[in-house]
Amino acid sequence: MSTLKPVTPFRGRESYFPGIDAVAYEGPASRNPLAFKVYNPEALVAGKTMRDHLRFAVAYWHSFTGSAGNDPFGPTTLDYPWNRADDAMTRARQRADGAFEFMSKLGVPFYCFHDVDVCDEGESLAVYEERLKEMTRVLAERQEATGIQLLWNTANLFSNPRYMHGAATNPDFSVVARAAAQVKACLEANVALGGHNYVFWGGREGYSTLLNSNTRLEQENLAAFLRAARDYGRSIGFTGTFLIEPKPMEPTKHQYDFDAATVIGFLHRQGLAGDFQLNIEANHATLANHSFAHELQTAADASMLGSIDANRGDPQNGWDTDQFPTDMTDLVQAVLVILGNGGFTTGGVNFDAKLRRGSVDLEDLFHAHIGGMDAFARALQVADALRQEGTLEEFRRGRYASFDEGQGAAFRRGELTLEALRDIAAAREPRRPESGRQEYLENLINQALLTTPLA
Amino acid sequence: MSTLKPVTPFRGRESYFPGIDAVAYEGPASRNPLAFKVYNPEALVAGKTMRDHLRFAVAYWHSFTGSAGNDPFGPTTLDYPWNRADDAMTRARQRADGAFEFMSKLGVPFYCFHDVDVCDEGESLAVYEERLKEMTRVLAERQEATGIQLLWNTANLFSNPRYMHGAATNPDFSVVARAAAQVKACLEANVALGGHNYVFWGGREGYSTLLNSNTRLEQENLAAFLRAARDYGRSIGFTGTFLIEPKPMEPTKHQYDFDAATVIGFLHRQGLAGDFQLNIEANHATLANHSFAHELQTAADASMLGSIDANRGDPQNGWDTDQFPTDMTDLVQAVLVILGNGGFTTGGVNFDAKLRRGSVDLEDLFHAHIGGMDAFARALQVADALRQEGTLEEFRRGRYASFDEGQGAAFRRGELTLEALRDIAAAREPRRPESGRQEYLENLINQALLTTPLA
Amino acid sequence: MSTLKPVTPFRGRESYFPGIDAVAYEGPASRNPLAFKVYNPEALVAGKTMRDHLRFAVAYWHSFTGSAGNDPFGPTTLDYPWNRADDAMTRARQRADGAFEFMSKLGVPFYCFHDVDVCDEGESLAVYEERLKEMTRVLAERQEATGIQLLWNTANLFSNPRYMHGAATNPDFSVVARAAAQVKACLEANVALGGHNYVFWGGREGYSTLLNSNTRLEQENLAAFLRAARDYGRSIGFTGTFLIEPKPMEPTKHQYDFDAATVIGFLHRQGLAGDFQLNIEANHATLANHSFAHELQTAADASMLGSIDANRGDPQNGWDTDQFPTDMTDLVQAVLVILGNGGFTTGGVNFDAKLRRGSVDLEDLFHAHIGGMDAFARALQVADALRQEGTLEEFRRGRYASFDEGQGAAFRRGELTLEALRDIAAAREPRRPESGRQEYLENLINQALLTTPLA
Amino acid sequence: MSTLKPVTPFRGRESYFPGIDAVAYEGPASRNPLAFKVYNPEALVAGKTMRDHLRFAVAYWHSFTGSAGNDPFGPTTLDYPWNRADDAMTRARQRADGAFEFMSKLGVPFYCFHDVDVCDEGESLAVYEERLKEMTRVLAERQEATGIQLLWNTANLFSNPRYMHGAATNPDFSVVARAAAQVKACLEANVALGGHNYVFWGGREGYSTLLNSNTRLEQENLAAFLRAARDYGRSIGFTGTFLIEPKPMEPTKHQYDFDAATVIGFLHRQGLAGDFQLNIEANHATLANHSFAHELQTAADASMLGSIDANRGDPQNGWDTDQFPTDMTDLVQAVLVILGNGGFTTGGVNFDAKLRRGSVDLEDLFHAHIGGMDAFARALQVADALRQEGTLEEFRRGRYASFDEGQGAAFRRGELTLEALRDIAAAREPRRPESGRQEYLENLINQALLTTPLA
Repeated sequence: MSTLKPVTPFRGRESYFPGIDAVAYEGPASRNPLAFKVYNPEALVAGKTMRDHLRFAVAYWHSFTGSAGNDPFGPTTLDYPWNRADDAMTRARQRADGAFEFMSKLGVPFYCFHDVDVCDEGESLAVYEERLKEMTRVLAERQEATGIQLLWNTANLFSNPRYMHGAATNPDFSVVARAAAQVKACLEANVALGGHNYVFWGGREGYSTLLNSNTRLEQENLAAFLRAARDYGRSIGFTGTFLIEPKPMEPTKHQYDFDAATVIGFLHRQGLAGDFQLNIEANHATLANHSFAHELQTAADASMLGSIDANRGDPQNGWDTDQFPTDMTDLVQAVLVILGNGGFTTGGVNFDAKLRRGSVDLEDLFHAHIGGMDAFARALQVADALRQEGTLEEFRRGRYASFDEGQGAAFRRGELTLEALRDIAAAREPRRPESGRQEYLENLINQALLTTPLA
Repeated sequence: MSTLKPVTPFRGRESYFPGIDAVAYEGPASRNPLAFKVYNPEALVAGKTMRDHLRFAVAYWHSFTGSAGNDPFGPTTLDYPWNRADDAMTRARQRADGAFEFMSKLGVPFYCFHDVDVCDEGESLAVYEERLKEMTRVLAERQEATGIQLLWNTANLFSNPRYMHGAATNPDFSVVARAAAQVKACLEANVALGGHNYVFWGGREGYSTLLNSNTRLEQENLAAFLRAARDYGRSIGFTGTFLIEPKPMEPTKHQYDFDAATVIGFLHRQGLAGDFQLNIEANHATLANHSFAHELQTAADASMLGSIDANRGDPQNGWDTDQFPTDMTDLVQAVLVILGNGGFTTGGVNFDAKLRRGSVDLEDLFHAHIGGMDAFARALQVADALRQEGTLEEFRRGRYASFDEGQGAAFRRGELTLEALRDIAAAREPRRPESGRQEYLENLINQALLTTPLA
Repeated sequence: MSTLKPVTPFRGRESYFPGIDAVAYEGPASRNPLAFKVYNPEALVAGKTMRDHLRFAVAYWHSFTGSAGNDPFGPTTLDYPWNRADDAMTRARQRADGAFEFMSKLGVPFYCFHDVDVCDEGESLAVYEERLKEMTRVLAERQEATGIQLLWNTANLFSNPRYMHGAATNPDFSVVARAAAQVKACLEANVALGGHNYVFWGGREGYSTLLNSNTRLEQENLAAFLRAARDYGRSIGFTGTFLIEPKPMEPTKHQYDFDAATVIGFLHRQGLAGDFQLNIEANHATLANHSFAHELQTAADASMLGSIDANRGDPQNGWDTDQFPTDMTDLVQAVLVILGNGGFTTGGVNFDAKLRRGSVDLEDLFHAHIGGMDAFARALQVADALRQEGTLEEFRRGRYASFDEGQGAAFRRGELTLEALRDIAAAREPRRPESGRQEYLENLINQALLTTPLA
Repeated sequence: MSTLKPVTPFRGRESYFPGIDAVAYEGPASRNPLAFKVYNPEALVAGKTMRDHLRFAVAYWHSFTGSAGNDPFGPTTLDYPWNRADDAMTRARQRADGAFEFMSKLGVPFYCFHDVDVCDEGESLAVYEERLKEMTRVLAERQEATGIQLLWNTANLFSNPRYMHGAATNPDFSVVARAAAQVKACLEANVALGGHNYVFWGGREGYSTLLNSNTRLEQENLAAFLRAARDYGRSIGFTGTFLIEPKPMEPTKHQYDFDAATVIGFLHRQGLAGDFQLNIEANHATLANHSFAHELQTAADASMLGSIDANRGDPQNGWDTDQFPTDMTDLVQAVLVILGNGGFTTGGVNFDAKLRRGSVDLEDLFHAHIGGMDAFARALQVADALRQEGTLEEFRRGRYASFDEGQGAAFRRGELTLEALRDIAAAREPRRPESGRQEYLENLINQALLTTPLA
């Protein structure tokens, strides 16, 4: 992974954020809400810059497309100036201008998009393919101008009504083929834009009721589809990582990629483990009744932690609220897992987060991203300090010392039979269990939050 | 699977249910609360008796041990007469008498137990082994006398404080060895009693906090432990099925065997898929945010549906309430999956369900089991009627017809590249999606509940 | 409450359901999916017709407006023929034709609507008022032609972006005034159409974050708003019931009308208890972590059970799925509470339920409503049978017999001091508690489901 | 409220924590895990000492009684030395010694207890009364010796099997009377010990199933019971606050005191509002699907915020985990509400929190409480800093400015009819809504966490 450079400012024919300058690091004491208090891209943490550690990306869909602010009970409230043109391609180009102006002012090195975020799909496959090619050229120019890179793109295989019963798992083969056409175009766009990863989020790959579903056939079709995509991607020169993003439900009653463990099992059984890793989203983790750190750890244990979608859910609301991440206790534990796994390689931190429906000003886009970036930067500082200090890790290692050598190690190597184990037990009742010290370890996290230097 | 016989009545030195006769089938119009209204063990459904279809089992722990009725806010309320003796082994024998009297009056062909249900553990491994052997002899006699068989047994590796940090996943090797000794003794008891299955429920195989846990090592140890158990079981003549029972949490913050998909992935990656299947519990399914039918279908899709723990949770209470099953809509959908999978082979329907704390009479044990057995028997009638009638299955099959031949079938066989799929899509936009007809299909279930003959 | 009459068939200039006849009762054995199996409007239950007991209503919004089938991840899929005209008022009239054709074919005696369901809001208050008046005339004609009556209407105070921060609880007074103008117009429409009730559902009356909210002021404003509406309604001749429909959240993070108990407390403290009752929705109950029967019982205990919104949620999905009701166990318990409260007076059973997104045929509208109506009709039969038979109620009454006379009755009348109670206790330790018999009572429900005659 | 003094060290006949000194404030840089990093009892915040602001209390039940560490799947693991004596009263006195040694070493000014925490209940009411009186004398001596005061006590009306169907809401009057006897004794103990508050937590005041419950009668009985208790308490000189602690469920299926709004409505309708306030527990709030801050705000809006039970739940576990509070984001928002309400008067911060089952060392009791106290102390610093700085509150006030004067103020005073409001709306369409600025406000919290001085 090469070192990332600062991005170059960009504006299109007109500026969409005329009153807002590039966001600078001003340190924790600054009262300027449009400055970073912690995120200093050049600051070194454990031998790498914050920029290289965190590899921040902005999500095209939540921040730039026209649906912003809608919910099941009301239409969009965010009237973005780049979305006002009548002509689809004019709108698409202006949106790209708005996006790159925003991202370059924010100073993020990456972005992510679905095909239909960057331009409307159009009335036929041919139109779709043409438009996506055209917008790929436009985005390539903007990437060139700014130095911003493509963390990943993906195909939206869930919004168009043709996908109401799924895409790769649709009961109608012609829909599966149509979905494949879209993925093919998206992989080509990815390669043209130098994408680092390619993501599958199976929006409607699941079921509404078991009564009309052949879940086994659907999941086998999903595997066949992913294999075809993988093969094609590799054939046209995609060398990045394929990522699957687990989510348990919504809009489906049940989504096949329920959580990390489910996806890991699926990838292994389907022979896809070599090319695929996981893109873990915090709010999807909690919808699946897991903590964010749990899902990261599960992926890391399987050597499949690829990238993350940073956000948070509302603990009292049972749907994907996609709020910007702010909870430091959660983030420190998440970054501990990421650092423990060696940090990101092709992946990064994508803000799959959206403004609250009532946050209607363009300025709110900046507040939200700045808050999220500062929160992650702080979590990085604190997690690194905890690792440097070492008490946490030393305690954990010590707990398992009985497996490092002797009979415990023999057991781990599979060398002890049940009879041998029984005889060991008969020879010696286990000692009184040692305290797990959970409260003490939690205190270490809070103390580190208090005392880790801010810069 | 051979045909099951009626059980023979049993009573020990004294009768614990003196006023209650063997429960008979009296038909739906009977007002006798201590009679079956639907469950007629000899009645034929799809060519087999209800007894052979449902293979009911009673759970020793909830119904006969001393902890009945306790909860985190108060002690036991169910003062079982067989649990009053001071001496542990006297108590154990009287409990076995009570259990077999109850089970033979209920007319169930199977039972299930943990080691420490049938006798107290004692102060050392040697005492434990001795007591379990003695009680195995007692239980064998009772089995012989009644014809009741052992559906499965298991080792309680979670109650003793030594297992506070887990058993096979304990950070201390000596605890792992002690757990192995217990499993060894239980496998021996199983073989002596002709058990049809052997179950692992990983009560505390999980974590309380990630901060002190090496989840990767713990899960690898779990696999090593299961392999050793499997090998020993096979070596002493166990020919039944090893079962893992998923549960997502409680008492742990997170249990490694979270749900069916997680366990299936684990078993495959660890080389255990051949010997192990799943024991699906309804209330564990809902705690994991799945329907009962979903977990059954997931296991069936993986050819790993072994047995079930029948109960239900409370939809508003986030812990394992283990209530007796009564909801017909859920049960019909569950039995549809079971019949679709060919029914049980070594498995059966074990009532892992307990009386409410306020149901303090011995008579309540009968009400509860009769209600659950009638509910399952009715679900069997209705599910079979739906299958005979065929509309549901025909609709489902028809939905996927495009994969039966031609290009759809070629895709399923993995013969189509992404480019080929794209060209198919370019040649023909998908037709307008057909209705999934969920409401209509749900109506079929309710109509079958209304109209399926009761006998 | 007068006896309801059968409705008269209706079709507008063109028929929107040309192949579907009026839905008839054909009895449980009928294989015609477009016939009632249980709901026989003229059948007598406990001295009243099923029609008079259940007072079914169809909801205009889910079944006839243009947003049908949309969700946060994709647009509408249900292409209703009455919504295709370019001109708003043409569309509105055609929609009314479609609605009344459907409702008269279904044979329901009532319907319900929001103002913006029946016509688009338009660009100004004046246009809105004019359109609503015009459509009130159209609906009055249709009501006259069919005999279908207005169960209730309501103002949509949540979809228009002006209400993004609430309506009566908006931080901007001018929005509160605008909401009041809408309620005024809706009350006038109600009186013109002879509405039996008027409903408030506080879609965005809640908060997104406490950090920017003055919850006390907002709730006081809500009370002032409701008082003004009540006074105006009464002044123009509205003699029906004002209803508040609790919901805990969604789209808000928290909605002030969280559940029945919250609303009852609010109405009492704000002096609104005389005019207002509750409209209980099943899916809102479960989102608030209550059973449907619980919310009904809470309202009944407060003498505030007005009407119900019939639907069901998905137990695994944490948002308002608004599915058609089918679960018989839940429905019997709900109808037991309704009958125990004396049945409906001004209220009824409104299907606030929508087709699944993949149920794209007009025919599915019939399947869904027929299934829901049959389920309620069956629940009515079964609940009535349980009440006639009397065991359930007799058991419950007997449990509390110690409060019927003597010291227990004196306690209920508030005549015993703590010292007196202590002396009673000192004189006699409580007897051993009697069994609550929950399992037995649940069995009674299931047996009644099996054995209650179908006609 | 007078100013609290430092407590005096205490030890009984033997020291139970021989190796642990009184916990001192050593500042954030200290690496001593048994020192406070933030909580400096004498430090001034907004004109009061931290000790006076936070009024910390230790809970007798979780930290000193014998059940520590048990859960539904295993017995106690925490082998407390003060609980080993065979004789009940010896055990009770030694436990009191252990408790006061611990509390005085921790330096908390308050403690809380249930009657059966301090001594076993015994075999009759007379024994119970005698034992409680004796222990009241013992505790009074310890209070005198240390200066530690009684924040509140309460009667355990849920553990004894006689309360299996409730206490004040029991269907058997003789149980109600027995419960009253217990409350009478507890009120007398309270007055003897100078308690500041008296708490009711209705452990089993709820139902297991509606089928056997008369919920209206039960809740009326609850009100009669509370009135009798209130009257007796006042008659014997109790001048403190009666507190009700809401909890939605567990061990009951539904608890009548579901949440703050439910209890507030109940207290008002039952004429108890003058004497009763609320004791809000964080984990109970989240079980009821509310945030902690929400429940505090609801109580504050009703002028009924009395005291708090400090702890936290596990967001993935649906039962009362009672963990020690550590999440700073939650705590800052909670303390903002408390300070906004003027701080505590008779109430305080009671740690209703327990060690994890695997935290088996006496030392862990210190880690847990120190972590919780430091977390609250930090939240106090940060919340105060936010209030001093004023941006948050200024923003909130400004949002509602339209109600401060003119027509908005007239509306608040109830002076505007619906017609008047309509005419206001007709004269002027609402302006474009202003941004709610949620993300910006959340950033302010995080920045304050970073930059508020530590001492």
